[in-house]
Amino acid sequence: MTLALDPAAQDLLFREAHTVNSFTDEPVSEEQVQAIYDLVKYAPTAFNQSPLRIVLVRSAEARERLVPHMAEGNQPKTASAPLVAILAADNEFHEELPSLFPHAPQIKDAFFSERGTREQAAGFNASLQAGYFIVGIRAAGLAAGPMTGFDPAGVQKEFLDDDHTPLMIVNIGKPGENAWKPRSPRLAFDQVVTTV
Amino acid sequence: MTLALDPAAQDLLFREAHTVNSFTDEPVSEEQVQAIYDLVKYAPTAFNQSPLRIVLVRSAEARERLVPHMAEGNQPKTASAPLVAILAADNEFHEELPSLFPHAPQIKDAFFSERGTREQAAGFNASLQAGYFIVGIRAAGLAAGPMTGFDPAGVQKEFLDDDHTPLMIVNIGKPGENAWKPRSPRLAFDQVVTTV
Repeated sequence: MTLALDPAAQDLLFREAHTVNSFTDEPVSEEQVQAIYDLVKYAPTAFNQSPLRIVLVRSAEARERLVPHMAEGNQPKTASAPLVAILAADNEFHEELPSLFPHAPQIKDAFFSERGTREQAAGFNASLQAGYFIVGIRAAGLAAGPMTGFDPAGVQKEFLDDDHTPLMIVNIGKPGENAWKPRSPRLAFDQVVTTV
Repeated sequence: MTLALDPAAQDLLFREAHTVNSFTDEPVSEEQVQAIYDLVKYAPTAFNQSPLRIVLVRSAEARERLVPHMAEGNQPKTASAPLVAILAADNEFHEELPSLFPHAPQIKDAFFSERGTREQAAGFNASLQAGYFIVGIRAAGLAAGPMTGFDPAGVQKEFLDDDHTPLMIVNIGKPGENAWKPRSPRLAFDQVVTTV
């Protein structure tokens, strides 16, 4: 009992959860996505900058525009998943900082006046949030199929703008038949953690 | 009941969890860190590349070497937290890929022969894992104080090497008195999520 989180929740979020490559036809509702967001929005980012932005690809027309930008091995699952989300970093997140970090509104200009600094901060913090979002999908009883195998420039041009950098595309739904491969090995504690 | 995760776990990991700035003296044991790792190691990375590496700063001598590299506002809490972890990306993660992705060992050379490609992949995937690690700290009933306010070059030189890029430093422990500020606002769903 070293962990406070109950074993069922450990299984749901980590131990029994798998990256899924096939899905049932059951749709993913707007209410489910909202519940995921309303849970994971509380997880931390630097200065509460919250740079993650999400494009939900729902229409058949938008799906047709997305699939050709996926790596070939990702195309069939992206074409057939109940819902596909494009996760992106907002490089102009600083515009929201005075309302997101109201006790120190000067942070916006003191730290984030340079676009390069913003791109680095947005990329890192939105990536943290992408990790939280994957956990949130599982918290909703759904499975995630996160993918980095796509053409970022193509996805950016088709769905975003110059201020938004795509990070990851996630298929979302209920696992279908043979939804995952056997779990690959993980690194041992001693390969990852050193103590000084 | 839109979420499958039970409300107590939602509170533990997200709703009632806060970034903590002061801690009690209660130590964080090796067993607790191992339990956190053994939970979050299952969360996904691209090609299972698992590039996150963690340096636990336990000795007084190492703590003294770390504190001067922290931003001034972070120095007192880093000096007093029961445990401090340096999270870094291993830019040479590809050496482990044949064992981490055994059904396609050719990935190592086909995708990751270039150092620049590896740095980008390691940075992104280790950042995802940093998000999982923060969730894992909370799953252990502990509080996290993640910080990006430090001198990366100084921390890299003092604790890492050229192949490991520091991403974040995390104070870990039980919340002390006045451990957190009031929660800052989060962006509304419609500010973050668009549907196409």
